[in-house]
This record gives sequence, C-alpha cells and structure tokens, in this order.
Amino acid sequence: MSEILVVGSVAYDSITTPSGYAEFTLGGSANYFSVAASLYSHVNVVGVVGEDYKDEDLQLLKSRDVSLEGLQQVAGKTFHWEGRYEGDMNDAITLETQLNVFEKFNPVIPDSYKKSPYVFLANIDPELQAEVLDQMEEPKLVGLDTMNFWIDSKIDSLKAILARVDVLLINEGEARKLADTHNTIQAVARLGHMGPKAVVVKRGEYGFVLYTDEKFFILPAFPVRQVIDPTGAGDTFAGGFFGYLSKMNGSWSVDDLKRACIQGVLLASYTVEDFGLGRLRQLDWAKVEKRFEEYMQVISYPHL
Amino acid sequence: MSEILVVGSVAYDSITTPSGYAEFTLGGSANYFSVAASLYSHVNVVGVVGEDYKDEDLQLLKSRDVSLEGLQQVAGKTFHWEGRYEGDMNDAITLETQLNVFEKFNPVIPDSYKKSPYVFLANIDPELQAEVLDQMEEPKLVGLDTMNFWIDSKIDSLKAILARVDVLLINEGEARKLADTHNTIQAVARLGHMGPKAVVVKRGEYGFVLYTDEKFFILPAFPVRQVIDPTGAGDTFAGGFFGYLSKMNGSWSVDDLKRACIQGVLLASYTVEDFGLGRLRQLDWAKVEKRFEEYMQVISYPHL
Repeated sequence: MSEILVVGSVAYDSITTPSGYAEFTLGGSANYFSVAASLYSHVNVVGVVGEDYKDEDLQLLKSRDVSLEGLQQVAGKTFHWEGRYEGDMNDAITLETQLNVFEKFNPVIPDSYKKSPYVFLANIDPELQAEVLDQMEEPKLVGLDTMNFWIDSKIDSLKAILARVDVLLINEGEARKLADTHNTIQAVARLGHMGPKAVVVKRGEYGFVLYTDEKFFILPAFPVRQVIDPTGAGDTFAGGFFGYLSKMNGSWSVDDLKRACIQGVLLASYTVEDFGLGRLRQLDWAKVEKRFEEYMQVISYPHL
Repeated sequence: MSEILVVGSVAYDSITTPSGYAEFTLGGSANYFSVAASLYSHVNVVGVVGEDYKDEDLQLLKSRDVSLEGLQQVAGKTFHWEGRYEGDMNDAITLETQLNVFEKFNPVIPDSYKKSPYVFLANIDPELQAEVLDQMEEPKLVGLDTMNFWIDSKIDSLKAILARVDVLLINEGEARKLADTHNTIQAVARLGHMGPKAVVVKRGEYGFVLYTDEKFFILPAFPVRQVIDPTGAGDTFAGGFFGYLSKMNGSWSVDDLKRACIQGVLLASYTVEDFGLGRLRQLDWAKVEKRFEEYMQVISYPHL
C-alpha cells in the first residue's frame, strides 16, 4: 500500500451558514485531506494539536488507519477558526482566527514518514512547507496549496517552494491573485510556468480547471442541491486527487490526472453536504461509485 | 431552410471594460441572436430602431439574409445602453439606459413571419413577449430570456409567459432570483417546474446547466484567455442553441439539446473576444468547427 504524507492544520472550527451553526466542530486541512485520502492509501499526518484536542477526534483518524506519529500534542489550545458563509457560499468570511498552538508549529517529520512517496503540503506558511519538503527523501509527487495571506506576506518563499512542487492545487480567487490577472485561464497558464508540472484550480460549485502539458481540462462540480457547509471542500478534493494518484505506483498520465480530479470532485461533493467532516467520515466506496455514475451522466455529451 | 423568429432589443451600446472603451457600438439581444442563429437557419427579426440607426448596421443583418420586415424604424433615437465591467467581468454595471424608441415598442408580427416554427423571446417586457407569442401560428419551439428588472416589476406576467414556453434560457443570477434560492441546482429544478420543458442557465465563464426530464447536464465554457467584452454572450449562446435545434426538423432529443448548448458555448466564446459584434460578425463554419475540436479536448475525460 502506498503512503501519502500530509502536513496541514488540525483545527476546531465554528461555522455559520444559511443552514445553521456548528460550534467547535472538527476541521483543518490535514483532517479533511486525511479522511479523504485514506480511502485510497495509507496516510501519514504531520500537524499539531493542543491539550483540548478530544480523544474521539484522534480516534477518527486512527479508525482510518492514519499514522499519527507526526501529530504533536503540545501545551495550549488547538487552532481555532470561526467563519461565516452567506448567499451563494462561494466565499467564507473569517470572523476570528486563533492560531494557538499552530503559532509556533515546527513540523518534524518522523523517520517512519520520510520515505512517503506522495507529499501534500496543505495551506500553511510556505517556509514551513519548505522545511517539510527538505526532510523528505525522494518524494515522487509533491502537491501544494496556499492562500491569500501567504501571497500577501511571503510571496518570495511561496515562489521558491512553488518551483519545487509537481502539482499546485489552489482556489480560483487565489490563483488569480497569485498570477496577477482576473482571467482564470490566463492565471492557470501563468502558474503553470512558475514551476509545477500541473496546476489544479478549484472553483467551488463550478468545478475545476486542470492545466498540464500546455493543455486545459475543465469540468463542473457535482450538482449538489443543498450545500450545508463548503468548509474543507478544497482539502477533500486534494485528498481524493492525491489518493487516486497514489495508487498509480509512481507514474501517471494526463488521463490519470483527469481521473484524479474527478475523484476530488466526487469526494468534495460529499463534504459540502453537512457541517465539518459530518458527511465525509461516513463515506465509503459504494457511495463514491454511485456518485461517479451519476456524475458521468451529468457531464456526458453526445458526439456530433 | 427552417425559420427562426426573434424579438428583442436593437441597440447602440457604450461599453467600458478593463481592455478599453467602445462608444455607440452595435448591440442589442436581437442583433447578437440573429447574427449567431443565421449561421444555421433563416432569421426573422422583430424590433425597433430610431432615425439614427445606421444603414451599415442594417446591412450586417441583410448580408446574413436576415429578414428585416419586422424591424420598425420610427421617429426618435435607438435604444442606448451604457455599462462597465470590472475585475472578473462576470457582472455588468449599468451606467445608463436610454429606452428611446424602445419605450413605446409595440411588436407587430408581419404575416410572412407568423409561421416561423422557432421563436425566441429575448429579454423584453414579458407582456410584449406574450403579445408576440399570441400572434404566432403553431410555433414548434419557443424560448425565452428575462432579467432582474422584470422579475422585480412584472413577476405575474413573467410567470404567465413562462408556462407557455418550451425553453427558458436565463443568467445564473437571474435564475437564482426568479427561483428564490442561492443554490443554482435547486433554482434550475424549481424553474423546470414552472412550465418550461427545459431550462438552460448561462453561467458566463463557467459554462451552463441544462435541466430537462429531471436531469442535469453541466459543462464549462470554452477557455478564453482574454475576455475583451462579455456583452451579448448570453444572446449569442441563445442564437447558437436555437440555430442548432432549428435544423432538427421539429423534433429533438436530450442529446440534441446538449449539442445545442455546446453550439451556444462555442459561439459565445467568440463574442467575448472583442467589443460588441466585432468577432461574431466575422465568424464562419470553419472557425466554429475548429473551436469545437478544441472544446472536445477540454472536456474529454477517460473512463475509469
């Protein structure tokens, strides 16, 4: 079984959406990614939690056979994000961010993780992303996500790490910002020339754009009639994407990248159907396969 | 050759986008629709222009063999819209609307038009849309577009005409407003139960959603690296959509509706590449076919 390393946030989120309110619900990019990717391969988590982190929340990852050796538990409180979604829910409004133990996070990669061939650097400080990558031994596929905050505050570190990754997975708004253009197609092409072999732009309810080998591949999201909470959809997408590729034994084609994106779309469509990890933690292969069939109907087109 | 009747605006637009400014450029839904649909079938236009309408602008439609018998020329000035696009250009900001001769527009359908089997009621007062439909003799396929203004001011008339049409083609924001929900998928399903056999939601750079027979069909737009001016893209889409269906000889399948949407996507992708009708008027079949091949690459996915 292949191994995927993920470094990212482990958090408690308080989220308000038009559907309701979830207080201190389990969240963080590393959690969404791990639960999604563990459907495909063994996941090694690197992150930090505080003393308040609940045993039942560790239990979730353990039940997915995720390795927690790299998940430090230190004095203080777990990272906390509070946000609100309104209207079409395409953008979160951050109400509060308490970094807590995340503020002094120093990612140390356990020896047992260092040979993980698949590495996903979720949205954290690009300098920490680089430190993680420095500790890895010959990774086969490295992916990276980032956000506006780092584009504004650490653009040089971000560009340096970008040149070292294979796949950039990024939100549409952040892709435009990083590439300094309002046109997503132009942005994707520019990002593709900053180092990554492939760029995947996550467009929320509009799906994704994959750019690789100077070509575009674009598909919509799975149509969800009631989006309860979009938090974590992007990290879930990344988990499905990496999970799928981790089964390719170290080599993959453009078609594999396309299939990986489709897995990302399917898994993310579950995440948005409930608050936090509510839906994703219940996901099994039978559900993914059923939704795959439905999605194929949605995007199937007749030839002329 | 089949015949398509369109009633809509004929206008001079002044448009500002990040790419520049076009002053009193030819526009209006009936012009975009007619130029697009005339690639497929004979088009009969119903509309009104003022004394200031230039002969060369009439010449454009004449050169496409579009019938102008229903295009009234009356005392006064042609309808004028002034708008601006910013940022991602997904929404126009209206700076000024001068209805001029359009204010007292009374659409009279010439006898030679009355048997047109395909009827497109572009975005005008829903009461006028009803008057046009009343004058038609057994149309086979009736399509309708509308906008926020009519949803706010004439919702009852709009719902009455909706129950009489086959296809609703509408912008995403307006679909959500008309269906009173922020979720587009839910909106489309609700609109599908208001009368039309099919609903097509136009999502600008994100493509479209087709809903018919309780099923969703969703595809992205053609990736355009430099959008110069999105004005008229929706009406161009409608022209391609109706144009394609008008060649089906009065019966069509779900696959034909899908193909019609794809024609809409392709034609609209040209319209946005220049101000006004600049690109669309130069369009020929060779270009459409080339873009069709490119689009098929963009949306092609491997089976698992």
